[in-house]
Amino acid sequence: MAETTTADDLLAALVKVVGDGQVTTGEAIAEDDTHDEALTVTPVTPLAVVRPRSTAEVAEVLRLADEARVPVTARGSGTGLSGAAVPVEGGLVVAFDAMAEILEIDTENHMAVVQPGVTLAQLNEALAPHGLVYPVFPGESSGSLGGNVATNAGGMRAVKYGVTRNQVLGLELVLPSGEVLRTGGKVVKATSGYDLTQLVIGSEGTLGLVTEVTCRLHPRLEHASTVLAPFATLDEVTAVVPEVVRSGVGPMIVEYIDMITMGAATAYVDLDLGIPEEVKDTALAYLVVVVEARTAERVEEDVALVAEMMAAAGAMDVYVLPTTAGAALIDAREKAFWVAKANGADDIVDVVVPRAAIPSYLARVSEIASGSGSWIAGCGHAGDGNVHLSVFQADPDVRRDVLRDVFRAGMDAGGAISGEHGIGTEKQHLFLELTDPAKVALMRRIKAAFDPHGTLNPGTLLD
Amino acid sequence: MAETTTADDLLAALVKVVGDGQVTTGEAIAEDDTHDEALTVTPVTPLAVVRPRSTAEVAEVLRLADEARVPVTARGSGTGLSGAAVPVEGGLVVAFDAMAEILEIDTENHMAVVQPGVTLAQLNEALAPHGLVYPVFPGESSGSLGGNVATNAGGMRAVKYGVTRNQVLGLELVLPSGEVLRTGGKVVKATSGYDLTQLVIGSEGTLGLVTEVTCRLHPRLEHASTVLAPFATLDEVTAVVPEVVRSGVGPMIVEYIDMITMGAATAYVDLDLGIPEEVKDTALAYLVVVVEARTAERVEEDVALVAEMMAAAGAMDVYVLPTTAGAALIDAREKAFWVAKANGADDIVDVVVPRAAIPSYLARVSEIASGSGSWIAGCGHAGDGNVHLSVFQADPDVRRDVLRDVFRAGMDAGGAISGEHGIGTEKQHLFLELTDPAKVALMRRIKAAFDPHGTLNPGTLLD
Repeated sequence: MAETTTADDLLAALVKVVGDGQVTTGEAIAEDDTHDEALTVTPVTPLAVVRPRSTAEVAEVLRLADEARVPVTARGSGTGLSGAAVPVEGGLVVAFDAMAEILEIDTENHMAVVQPGVTLAQLNEALAPHGLVYPVFPGESSGSLGGNVATNAGGMRAVKYGVTRNQVLGLELVLPSGEVLRTGGKVVKATSGYDLTQLVIGSEGTLGLVTEVTCRLHPRLEHASTVLAPFATLDEVTAVVPEVVRSGVGPMIVEYIDMITMGAATAYVDLDLGIPEEVKDTALAYLVVVVEARTAERVEEDVALVAEMMAAAGAMDVYVLPTTAGAALIDAREKAFWVAKANGADDIVDVVVPRAAIPSYLARVSEIASGSGSWIAGCGHAGDGNVHLSVFQADPDVRRDVLRDVFRAGMDAGGAISGEHGIGTEKQHLFLELTDPAKVALMRRIKAAFDPHGTLNPGTLLD
Repeated sequence: MAETTTADDLLAALVKVVGDGQVTTGEAIAEDDTHDEALTVTPVTPLAVVRPRSTAEVAEVLRLADEARVPVTARGSGTGLSGAAVPVEGGLVVAFDAMAEILEIDTENHMAVVQPGVTLAQLNEALAPHGLVYPVFPGESSGSLGGNVATNAGGMRAVKYGVTRNQVLGLELVLPSGEVLRTGGKVVKATSGYDLTQLVIGSEGTLGLVTEVTCRLHPRLEHASTVLAPFATLDEVTAVVPEVVRSGVGPMIVEYIDMITMGAATAYVDLDLGIPEEVKDTALAYLVVVVEARTAERVEEDVALVAEMMAAAGAMDVYVLPTTAGAALIDAREKAFWVAKANGADDIVDVVVPRAAIPSYLARVSEIASGSGSWIAGCGHAGDGNVHLSVFQADPDVRRDVLRDVFRAGMDAGGAISGEHGIGTEKQHLFLELTDPAKVALMRRIKAAFDPHGTLNPGTLLD
């Protein structure tokens, strides 16, 4: 904190800006506001949690904090998995639950304009009557749009629709100086200066605070169907994926689930898919494909084609699931994080590799696991190479070595440390250790262009 | 130029790096290398045109130029429309025609890795045997991938596939310091630091030189069909677009063409679509929709649905074009730039607005035109709001005022000055005049993070 400002001065100034009821301090701070959902974080109680109700308030709060050199951590719903929403000691949390309005559903341009605290569930409920959908389903529908922007959230439908980066077209952004910028807008393309929207997406709250999000909407296709196939090896699973994609059926979901995760996930939601025991005993991996279309006939045709390809690729069996079972399976898969947590996983990571590299990458992960006395199980987005691994290794030092090897192997395969969770505080050290120093230096210069005093989320991503 | 370095010193050093045959100076510089295709540019002969053959050579050339404080302009195929590839007097042009190899077509991950000089035509020819396509068709297939990255090229298929930004996943990038960075890779998602790939796309050669591009490929769907409908008003044209998109047919192309442009374009390619004279005389605008699918039956169904929607929306008639006529119409539309040029247009711009704002925006453009004694005709991507306008106004001062009003009206409608051509040298002054100064200042700080000495493309985009 700057020497001329005391904590009390700052708190008094903040109360003046947002009102008494919108500033919480000390014991009054809710436990939930002291952490996100990363398994490894230590909760931190900040100096204060501030809940602004307008962009003007956010700007003034940020300006005051920047002037006082007090760190600011943005908080959406707190469902992140990287520690990026964990407060800094002595810092402020700017929580966006009082800015959670859907400002506009534009049915002509197929866009929505929302405040950052709006949740995915809230948005999609509002869109349903219009026959539209916001297609980012990161597996946690209580996640906020602001948080989704910060982490570039992805999820199972990314193989068809892409991730947050592909849906968000405009932002209102507050810089630490208190300046308010509008980037992009209701246009799906523009070459008119650097794309600040894209730069901020995935920046984990380190460049600016997002106070408004403009995002694309898509037609809600009414017909969908799920195909499930057990395979003897993971290689066979991933070999069939390019075929399915190239066929032109445009699958909405292409997931692999290893046998351990399948057993745990279906047990967690008490789901019986009717798979014979002898198949369950020998199937090492499952492929799940969901197709959607505008007519029931097309879904049927596409499902038949996908099933044929799977059978030809050596599936032990192919099940076209009834609608409810299909939805339940996807639901079980979405709960993979909670399943892993319930089963005592010590960490959960989401390395991304080129999708064809999944088998060789997972073989390498197995070696790393067995070589270190750890246990690693997983599932992931086979359509886009995003591998979600539950790591069971209680010793933090050993676990760090395991993660270093797991991350390095992913990067060596042409991938990245995280596909959609982000780096946050928890992977920051390994990110800095494993990334080209020239690239890190450039990122630091970019950070300084937005946030010269390092006010925003220190300790996340960069130092 | 830095005082310690003479032009001769620099040229000698460059020859040492790239070899004698790869450096052209003075009279030996081809006229073509002194400009791009913007109608308003004045050709400039640079100090030298350098044609490196490897990333290492590019890095050394850039380092030498930066050290000598000599400006560098990157050049792909020179098909740009904004002046961004016009040399700076006394500066270097780094031309990429000697780096035009397709390094890899990865049929498992559906990605290509190419050098920046590779043209769109060259890439798609190589992809055809694999049943794959690179879906960015900006209307000039001699354009290079490097140039496409610099301008974030779009084109008619953007309504379905998006623009360059949505296809390019990784870059090899050379900074003015000579540092070589790899950004992104064969992964469709990553949240592992700032997305430098996205920041460089559309930066018009001002942040770094791209020496390798990794891009997504898509299944080449075999069946397509074109529907053409004349309408009495442009309002009716744009009103039907959201319906077509929401129907779930996923059109590949949704274009509007005004009556003037339709007449000129079809005459230019000598195309008779068999539209009766009385329709031609009263139709103010045409809507063209192309749908594609994996089976002929689906195309037929989708075309019927689109035709029905157009008829219900008040089309004067609806024509489902035979394959050759459909292709010829799209070809004619792609030549709109050359048609405008042949007809004596003084400038061509490509403002982007929210697609539903097209009619009100064009009404405003008409007012601006008639109020200034100018003439403005157009066509554009009705699916994504990108309006291509041919401006006929010979007086450069009046034209600048007209363009200021045309751009401002687009920005007021929630759009941007350029959807895909870029700002370049030609729109730089108006861009700086019309854009929020805080945003420009931030862009300048970002520019300095990459290029502290302002070596790359001075005079383009920012000062």
